[in-house]
Amino acid sequence: MGSDVESVTDVLIVGGGPAGMMAGITAAQSWPGKRVLLVRPEADAVVPCGIPYIFGTLGGTDEDLAGRAPFLSAGGRLVVDHVVAVDRGDRSAVLGRTGRVRWERLVLATGSEPVLPPIPGRELSGVFTIHKNYEYLDRLLSVDLPAVRTLAVVGGGFIGVEFAEEVRKRGIEVHLIEQQPHPLANSFDPEVSRRVEAVLGQVGVKLHTGTGVAAFEAGEGGERVGGVRLSDGSLVPCDAALVALGARPNTRLAEGMGLTLSRSGGVWVDGFQRSREDPAIFAVGDCAHKQDFFTRHASHAMLASQAAAEGRIAGMNLYGLRLLRANAGTIAVYASRIADLSFGVAGLTEATARALGFSVVAGSVRLPDHHPATMPGTQEIHCRLLFDRVSERLLGGQVTGGATTAELLNTIAIAIQLRATATDIASLQFGSHPRLTAPVHPVVAATGDALVRWGGSGADAPGTTPQEVADG
Amino acid sequence: MGSDVESVTDVLIVGGGPAGMMAGITAAQSWPGKRVLLVRPEADAVVPCGIPYIFGTLGGTDEDLAGRAPFLSAGGRLVVDHVVAVDRGDRSAVLGRTGRVRWERLVLATGSEPVLPPIPGRELSGVFTIHKNYEYLDRLLSVDLPAVRTLAVVGGGFIGVEFAEEVRKRGIEVHLIEQQPHPLANSFDPEVSRRVEAVLGQVGVKLHTGTGVAAFEAGEGGERVGGVRLSDGSLVPCDAALVALGARPNTRLAEGMGLTLSRSGGVWVDGFQRSREDPAIFAVGDCAHKQDFFTRHASHAMLASQAAAEGRIAGMNLYGLRLLRANAGTIAVYASRIADLSFGVAGLTEATARALGFSVVAGSVRLPDHHPATMPGTQEIHCRLLFDRVSERLLGGQVTGGATTAELLNTIAIAIQLRATATDIASLQFGSHPRLTAPVHPVVAATGDALVRWGGSGADAPGTTPQEVADG
Repeated sequence: MGSDVESVTDVLIVGGGPAGMMAGITAAQSWPGKRVLLVRPEADAVVPCGIPYIFGTLGGTDEDLAGRAPFLSAGGRLVVDHVVAVDRGDRSAVLGRTGRVRWERLVLATGSEPVLPPIPGRELSGVFTIHKNYEYLDRLLSVDLPAVRTLAVVGGGFIGVEFAEEVRKRGIEVHLIEQQPHPLANSFDPEVSRRVEAVLGQVGVKLHTGTGVAAFEAGEGGERVGGVRLSDGSLVPCDAALVALGARPNTRLAEGMGLTLSRSGGVWVDGFQRSREDPAIFAVGDCAHKQDFFTRHASHAMLASQAAAEGRIAGMNLYGLRLLRANAGTIAVYASRIADLSFGVAGLTEATARALGFSVVAGSVRLPDHHPATMPGTQEIHCRLLFDRVSERLLGGQVTGGATTAELLNTIAIAIQLRATATDIASLQFGSHPRLTAPVHPVVAATGDALVRWGGSGADAPGTTPQEVADG
Repeated sequence: MGSDVESVTDVLIVGGGPAGMMAGITAAQSWPGKRVLLVRPEADAVVPCGIPYIFGTLGGTDEDLAGRAPFLSAGGRLVVDHVVAVDRGDRSAVLGRTGRVRWERLVLATGSEPVLPPIPGRELSGVFTIHKNYEYLDRLLSVDLPAVRTLAVVGGGFIGVEFAEEVRKRGIEVHLIEQQPHPLANSFDPEVSRRVEAVLGQVGVKLHTGTGVAAFEAGEGGERVGGVRLSDGSLVPCDAALVALGARPNTRLAEGMGLTLSRSGGVWVDGFQRSREDPAIFAVGDCAHKQDFFTRHASHAMLASQAAAEGRIAGMNLYGLRLLRANAGTIAVYASRIADLSFGVAGLTEATARALGFSVVAGSVRLPDHHPATMPGTQEIHCRLLFDRVSERLLGGQVTGGATTAELLNTIAIAIQLRATATDIASLQFGSHPRLTAPVHPVVAATGDALVRWGGSGADAPGTTPQEVADG
């Protein structure tokens, strides 16, 4: 309190990434009488999943700006400032420049920070991570990157793989280092990750798989990185190294407030994104704890789409529970594209499903993404689905293909979330068109394949009643 | 019987379009011990929805051939012949060349024929309809069309609109005549049909809307069409006229067998596609009666995708009912693309929903189909959804956009069929990616917009419990 300037809002949102913005838009739309204030440290925010494309396809940080218009036109107010501390008892927050703000509902959307493990040499100049910050990225693009001839990318997850391809477009030599046998090996079953690996090779990315990083070694002069020493003893020479080994929740503010964190490090939240300590305090997005949809285990997925869904749930439930609009758990829907190959996954991989104990029935199909396959621009879709043998529920799917790949994954995601069974999906109707789709829907066709495999013969498949009815 | 050659099969399928082929594939996969014979009159069958593209994009009939491989590799047998008659009592069929075939299960997939109403002058040379027949289409492309300078297309439905654009690519002057105020006016609410109209104009198709056809008039010589006289008295000169006014079920064989037809003219079938007279006789696709998913009224949709779904249902239920794999009714999912505009509809239009008595809540959204919108190749998606105010169920949706349009409609279709409510959809998770999708899912965002409009304020929206829980 004291002599600070003091202002009042109804809803205070801390952070302006996808989770915070979506919470703000939804809050302003759902509770029209309430004032919604969003505080974030940067005037211009970047679209997080667009960050790799700043360095190639888009060619500039200004080409990756997230719009504020939907939030402002919904009636929200945006202040550029830092939230220094929150007083829970007092229901107020101290902002660096603006002073003290009183609130009725607080939404923490403080995001995540890249992980930089204690690898020897990580303090060398030229070793960097990706911060989702306009000025940082702009400097990286315009000051640092033009001097780079050879880049080592440590970590073959989505960020590493997308960065590798984009930076390659600048003519930089790129080495991708991944401890697993293939890039994206944690997200995909080997068939897909091998295809991604092949495409990366085609665009000229040099792959070093099955080997970890022992150290960053200094080049001439001793201050700047000159190479990455791999755990097999070999050296990958480079004049810059991107560490893309994931991110951890940014919970400094939450910890300062005494909020409970989950074992996975995120702010503990219930199905309405409310904190344990105070149902007026919400957390959404990368800073919030997530549970897997199927297993209820902690999920470490950090996805803008998931963050936005959580922001929407918090926004809708701020001043009254809408009982059916709760977080059912994370269905990680990942999709990406390298060169002309689009690929993605929704739900469980086969390895994970089997490790969890599911008895899995898989079905797959290959189809052209236009039809007939002679239509211009046709690419092959490969769709592979996993079902639980007992409940017949869809557990997950992986798709490679063309422009429709992510929406096919979203079809899989909606079928998972609406608890569709193989029998349900097999009799669903879908539309098709020569210029826009496969001749039959890949999800239906792959489900049909799974049903054929269910018991080795159609008569054993679920939903069958053995009596002969047609002669009756 | 008599002296005919006689052969035996277990399953006899009459017709080899999408319905027959899918019935055959599914039958062969689902009932591995059974012999599946498919009889169709043509050696080479065209992909029906690809037909318009033969005349432009594909450039040849051979580029639009439907594959037989999936059916043959599933173990089916294909015979090119005509089925002359079926003896129900005897469970046999007489084929023109092959002789008599005995069957245990009969699947009628005899398709549809184009309608040619009794418009004066319809017998003139140069007045034609589209038959889904390889030789007919090949002759049209290679013999008839090269002589055409000006084509009149009568009927602005999907076939008419797609033909108009494709034929235009050959440099032919094209006039499109549609009785309704806009093309596709029966399928779309006016906003979409106006956009299609504008794009048709941009590719040089000349539109004559709000006027019917009075007569086809002869040109010089008196034998060939020289113009279309419109009901407003004006004359559209042409040297050929395509009549694209829809199709009617081809039920000659079914009528000869004494099967009951529905009032809409298709073979009456139950939810397993079985005929009224004999549960061993099935009908699928355009020749079979359809019911609308919502209203149970006769549906006149004739779609390859719907036909394939019916074929699948029949194939799965031939020798035993799989109780959950029945036809839930037709959700007509139409999609198409003219120039760079993709568009489509799933379920009810607003006009139809209101006429049926639904209290409709609509929600809509405009989003880029990549994100940020600076990504190369970005097109705007416009998604508009309709919900029933009382049950909160999704009734239908219309989408315009780019390459993902049809799969977004399929997302709407699956949500309708799995009986999702606005509340369900609002809290669904979807994946996103800069190169592949909008920043937020258009279906979720449009649902959010509908919820805001539900009662004028968020507090009145469905699923809200009024008590203040956050202070509790």
